[in-house]
Amino acid sequence: MNDFPAGMVWLVGAGPGDPELVTRKAERLIGLGTVVFHDALVGPGVLELAAPGARLVHVGKRSGRHSKDQRTIDQLIVQAALAGERVVRLKGGDPAIFGRMAEELSACRTAGVPVRICPGVTAASAAAASLGASLTLRGLARKLTFVTAHARTGEPLDLDWKALADPDATLVVYMGKAAAADVSRHLIVAGLPGSTPVALVESASLPEEGQFHTRLDLLPLVARTALGEGPALLLIGAALADSAQPSGRANAVTGTACESAAT
Amino acid sequence: MNDFPAGMVWLVGAGPGDPELVTRKAERLIGLGTVVFHDALVGPGVLELAAPGARLVHVGKRSGRHSKDQRTIDQLIVQAALAGERVVRLKGGDPAIFGRMAEELSACRTAGVPVRICPGVTAASAAAASLGASLTLRGLARKLTFVTAHARTGEPLDLDWKALADPDATLVVYMGKAAAADVSRHLIVAGLPGSTPVALVESASLPEEGQFHTRLDLLPLVARTALGEGPALLLIGAALADSAQPSGRANAVTGTACESAAT
Repeated sequence: MNDFPAGMVWLVGAGPGDPELVTRKAERLIGLGTVVFHDALVGPGVLELAAPGARLVHVGKRSGRHSKDQRTIDQLIVQAALAGERVVRLKGGDPAIFGRMAEELSACRTAGVPVRICPGVTAASAAAASLGASLTLRGLARKLTFVTAHARTGEPLDLDWKALADPDATLVVYMGKAAAADVSRHLIVAGLPGSTPVALVESASLPEEGQFHTRLDLLPLVARTALGEGPALLLIGAALADSAQPSGRANAVTGTACESAAT
Repeated sequence: MNDFPAGMVWLVGAGPGDPELVTRKAERLIGLGTVVFHDALVGPGVLELAAPGARLVHVGKRSGRHSKDQRTIDQLIVQAALAGERVVRLKGGDPAIFGRMAEELSACRTAGVPVRICPGVTAASAAAASLGASLTLRGLARKLTFVTAHARTGEPLDLDWKALADPDATLVVYMGKAAAADVSRHLIVAGLPGSTPVALVESASLPEEGQFHTRLDLLPLVARTALGEGPALLLIGAALADSAQPSGRANAVTGTACESAAT
């Protein structure tokens, strides 16, 4: 199979972080790349799948840190392909879900560089697996919605909270920790009960994963106690009600515990 | 790593169908199973990853066909685990997204059988990759919603169409082909423009994959011409506007083509 000739770009989903959650196809493509441009969210174990001679280039963007801007990344990728490299652009999770790949696709197409996409396991799927929970439930959670709380610095979260406050749906907020208090307030104002179950999962699938089980009205408190550095998802809805805590790393903050902590 | 002792159940996401889109972890677990219970949506190439001596048991449910009911499946899985087998329950896509795993999780827990989940690539991610499209776009498609159009036979689709008719979102309808005309009508009545871009992807990631590019008001026509037997996704929203047709298997039904076909 020669689906990766010199001068081509593959946008590859690296999955949630655990190198075992890379697909067999991504593993093959990463191993074929002569250069791998990767994000901050790509786990170090995943980068070990690159060929020994391959060049690894960190082009990650992370809120609040200095990093290459999007146009520079676009240019780097296109130039490498035009120079005859096999270019892997590795993105955390699935590149089609909050992977910001539109500009890179467009830059490649404009330059006449062949570009294809290899999908990956998105972080919400990994978080659900760790929680032992389904994101959809027949009758109870028939709709699953993903949003990101990653607003530009200083800008308010501009989302249609009324549409998101659906008791028959599961809502997953990517990059949700910093905005947890806002998310909680907006959803409650929009009509979602304060007792709605919430799980906060940091660094899903990695050894340092953290799970926090709470309810919507107590979420701001829990988010403050979640001290990890990793990216965090908020999973909100009835489907999270009986999520087990199979990893033993879970922390439950219940109404009772918080009340006693406050007194 | 001994995360799969005898007497345990793993609910494993098989991904969208292409055996290369199985994760490395799923590959390992499938190879360790002494029995593999699998759905109709799991591709034959994936089943080849099972160990030579493993028992493969088809327990698939597919609309309109006779198959094992859910309670029978629950019992088969639990009994196999209690008999000391290493049980793989293989589900198409990601088991947490319309994978109906809640009953099986619950049956295992009630019986005291240890059960864990291995996430997979969901069909929407595979379809987006094949289309060369992102499901989210900064500014244009900041929300991504998955619903299923798989209603019980004879029952109408009971979804909140008003909330789904969001021009700033991408909507993916799983199992969407049979309901395409209803989906189109409901969304237009709820206010989504008839010109909204739509892609219909059948058998995403498999050799027989089919892609159809159209717009919301012409979707019913396109769905009737999509004659494949495989499961189909509808992808609806502005993010699909410039989805390329990289596979060469795409069929575009444009307004113009349809108008001339109608005259």
